[in-house]
Amino acid sequence: MSEEHNWASRRTAKQAKLTAMQSWLNGKFGQTKDAKTILEGLIQSGDRVVLEGDNQKQASFLSQTLAQVDPEKVNHLHMIMSSISRPEHLDIFEDGIASKLDFSFAGPQSTRVSQMIADGSLVIGDIHTYLELYARLYVDLIPNVVLVAADQVDKDGNLYTGNNTEETPVIVEAAAFHDGIVIVQANQVVDRVPRVDIPGDWVDVVIPADQPYQLEPLFTRDPQNITELQILMAMMAIKGIYGKHHVQSVNHGVGFNTAAIELLLPTYGEQLGLKGKIVPNWEVNPTPTLIPAIESGWIQSIHSFGGEVGMGDYISARPDIFFVGPDGTMRSNRAFGQMAGQYALDMFVGSTLQIDQYGNSSTVTHGRLSGFGGAPNMGSNPSGRRHSTPAWQSLRPDNDPLGKGQKLVVQMVETYGANKRPVFVDSLDAVAVQKEAKLKNVPIMIYSEDTTHIVTEEGIAYLYKTDSMAERQAAIEAIAGVTPVGLRSDPAVVQDLRARGIVALPEDLGVRRTQATRSLLAAQNMADLVQWSHGLYNPPAKFRSWS
Amino acid sequence: MSEEHNWASRRTAKQAKLTAMQSWLNGKFGQTKDAKTILEGLIQSGDRVVLEGDNQKQASFLSQTLAQVDPEKVNHLHMIMSSISRPEHLDIFEDGIASKLDFSFAGPQSTRVSQMIADGSLVIGDIHTYLELYARLYVDLIPNVVLVAADQVDKDGNLYTGNNTEETPVIVEAAAFHDGIVIVQANQVVDRVPRVDIPGDWVDVVIPADQPYQLEPLFTRDPQNITELQILMAMMAIKGIYGKHHVQSVNHGVGFNTAAIELLLPTYGEQLGLKGKIVPNWEVNPTPTLIPAIESGWIQSIHSFGGEVGMGDYISARPDIFFVGPDGTMRSNRAFGQMAGQYALDMFVGSTLQIDQYGNSSTVTHGRLSGFGGAPNMGSNPSGRRHSTPAWQSLRPDNDPLGKGQKLVVQMVETYGANKRPVFVDSLDAVAVQKEAKLKNVPIMIYSEDTTHIVTEEGIAYLYKTDSMAERQAAIEAIAGVTPVGLRSDPAVVQDLRARGIVALPEDLGVRRTQATRSLLAAQNMADLVQWSHGLYNPPAKFRSWS
Repeated sequence: MSEEHNWASRRTAKQAKLTAMQSWLNGKFGQTKDAKTILEGLIQSGDRVVLEGDNQKQASFLSQTLAQVDPEKVNHLHMIMSSISRPEHLDIFEDGIASKLDFSFAGPQSTRVSQMIADGSLVIGDIHTYLELYARLYVDLIPNVVLVAADQVDKDGNLYTGNNTEETPVIVEAAAFHDGIVIVQANQVVDRVPRVDIPGDWVDVVIPADQPYQLEPLFTRDPQNITELQILMAMMAIKGIYGKHHVQSVNHGVGFNTAAIELLLPTYGEQLGLKGKIVPNWEVNPTPTLIPAIESGWIQSIHSFGGEVGMGDYISARPDIFFVGPDGTMRSNRAFGQMAGQYALDMFVGSTLQIDQYGNSSTVTHGRLSGFGGAPNMGSNPSGRRHSTPAWQSLRPDNDPLGKGQKLVVQMVETYGANKRPVFVDSLDAVAVQKEAKLKNVPIMIYSEDTTHIVTEEGIAYLYKTDSMAERQAAIEAIAGVTPVGLRSDPAVVQDLRARGIVALPEDLGVRRTQATRSLLAAQNMADLVQWSHGLYNPPAKFRSWS
Repeated sequence: MSEEHNWASRRTAKQAKLTAMQSWLNGKFGQTKDAKTILEGLIQSGDRVVLEGDNQKQASFLSQTLAQVDPEKVNHLHMIMSSISRPEHLDIFEDGIASKLDFSFAGPQSTRVSQMIADGSLVIGDIHTYLELYARLYVDLIPNVVLVAADQVDKDGNLYTGNNTEETPVIVEAAAFHDGIVIVQANQVVDRVPRVDIPGDWVDVVIPADQPYQLEPLFTRDPQNITELQILMAMMAIKGIYGKHHVQSVNHGVGFNTAAIELLLPTYGEQLGLKGKIVPNWEVNPTPTLIPAIESGWIQSIHSFGGEVGMGDYISARPDIFFVGPDGTMRSNRAFGQMAGQYALDMFVGSTLQIDQYGNSSTVTHGRLSGFGGAPNMGSNPSGRRHSTPAWQSLRPDNDPLGKGQKLVVQMVETYGANKRPVFVDSLDAVAVQKEAKLKNVPIMIYSEDTTHIVTEEGIAYLYKTDSMAERQAAIEAIAGVTPVGLRSDPAVVQDLRARGIVALPEDLGVRRTQATRSLLAAQNMADLVQWSHGLYNPPAKFRSWS
């Protein structure tokens, strides 16, 4: 290679584009009305573009603007998006602006993703977890342009991202330190930010947004919708898993099952004498249903992937518990949160739409390619982990001196889902989806080998204790109720599994079904949560039935 | 819990300590001579204290100062250190300043660590990998005080950490956003930093150091010390692993084996026609032996955990390859690097001191408790990973429709180590060390189940192809030479394993032993590397034989 080789081609290209747009920029600042022109000038056809947007926070002004660019000028973009959440995230593919997509999660748009893959208007790079998508921004998906959102920006381009810092830092760093272009939409431009979350040196262009970035209260669950079946399952989980294994650190997925657990800690957990003995440390979004447990002194620390709408004031008033900056507002961090969720925790508790007869689970069902977000990070056993905790060690096989413990990975499901379809199935819909969408792997969320416990309204299957696939299947059948899988269960086998502690029914655990009533919840509704918070929690309008 | 509960006890304590020290501080700045007094005032007995120091960069001024504090005033500290590298890191335990230790790596001090555990002067929390140690700073090892090092600090406390940013950001964030105290030693105080790596808002106290922080050129290997046996192994690896599996992204551990591979890419790799087909993307420290491959156009990107002494100017001149800021100097990031190394890569290639008959390996040998640094992150199969690459898929079992690929984890060892002791052993010394140090687990670095290939001077064992432990053992024996393990090898079995592609000798791979000469290396010595770099690489004095 000759000495004349340009080893700074990315820098040269970046400078040329910024220089060409100088008349549209005042220093780093562009005007809202010029946003489309600025994107057309700074994004080149074929570029790798990261668009911020996870399951909560969306760079919605920039995504709307990107959808308006002229596909004659900007096309064949390779988009990298944690979450496909908004219509224009897919419009840009139909309109010829983008052609390839790497993503993690597609909840609200999952049906359309499936259709677009089938009709060829979308080419998938891969379906990731959050953590691997972030990791690849430093390896083989290094971005040319990143589009992110900030709450406030000062005159030097310093960003305040506060409660919803989320994935902004890990995205911005990948571009700022590899001659990518960092474009920020700002809710507000101010003289002085409350604190600097991301230094202005890392930011190239700031555009004031026409309205604040979209933010979804994804983790808010109204206690009034928790059923007595969910309360029964929560009681079993607390006694038969949290207490039994002395779990100290935990992540809860989204859902009413885990909300029920949170609301039973100060009541049922207290009755069991578990206060001070379990779950002091959490990696979890600040779900409002945690408030009673926090106020009752159950919880020592919570680190969060993101914020939660309405929880800001409460979090600011509880800095011993939450991660809060010197300015008094929360800082979240999705990359570090996923890292902690994968490597540092005793236990992950999640839910799913389907579990097959072997124990593999997926939220991908027929026609809906939803992706996984962070669940496979949290819901897998990281074999690189070397530190040891009592919970971890309690799952250690006793016949191998070189053996080690493992992460508790718990699936909590009712045997029939909200749609009246069985959760336990012989074969996952994901197997068909793989073929339809021509994926390299069956889109399994959590593999059987990583799943240590399944909880249903029937009981708990302690899968980590099984020593063959046949025994694992029998344990699953034992708690699968009247689903086709459950109907195969042999009462004599169940009796044996119960005797050996591989399956536990409520009566085996000493959990009384009659106690599983809504009165056991520490909060019955949103108003109760507000009261527990001393008025500091401010629920979003759609959850405020009383005002 | 009453409404009078103080939910900001950490903040109150921090403010009280900073206020009490006001006469010793000018704003955020203390004086070098007052460092001991400042630490005595800001660190409280029993505090959790993170001391920056990985295998390269050390907050050496602050560690020396900590060793001087009065143990009557400050004692029973719980220290969290990535690396135990300097004598005072252990002196503080003998002197009664600290009592408990969580760490990752203890290379230079590993013998003393073993002795101190045995005599009870050191209580180990756990031995971690880098990634889990960082993760726990956000969960159950949230620090009260962190002691870190910066190259330059401006009047507002903004930090420039440049090439050696390393683990500083992940440590500082854990304290800055949980009312911990962030204390920084500065090589230089300047009016304006070249760029802001860490915002001043996150920093409480800055003390100019008496001399620059310690920095070790840990990853520099002089080509003149590469042997022809290592060249033979490198040729086998390139043809039989890198080429065979179409590996695109890789991490290399420290050592001459991987240095040989780096120096054979532009020669032997070119002969094989592999240029442009393998390893464009790297997560690796900027080892000087990569220079010929970079200059020859083999490499597209390198993200690094840390810097490397003498490589700064070369890196600045190659921003298309390395992660370099707008100011023109590199930014490293150990937390993101470990995340990428674990989740984003096709392959890890490392070395070890012992491998047992089953394929478990460890660098912990009798009397030396060295810990693992990042090897178990990189050298493990992350079951949470969901994206798919050709290399990954090439290891997929063909009998399971729900199966998936896995990471290539390669151990490269000569059958006898530098100390003339066999690398292949029936039982790891680590088993005895577990008992002596009363560890909860045998300190295995990489487990057999994660190890997909072993390369020795005898050949390659493709362990991922074996379908029983007995077959795995036979494959290991086949390449274990005249070690006790190797002597058990049955020639008829080896013949069968070769026929089935489970073991490959050089002749099976078409690798000619006679070609394995030093003339095949793209650089013979350090001077050659300097020449390849067009004079931009500036080796540390101890590597400069010619000046």
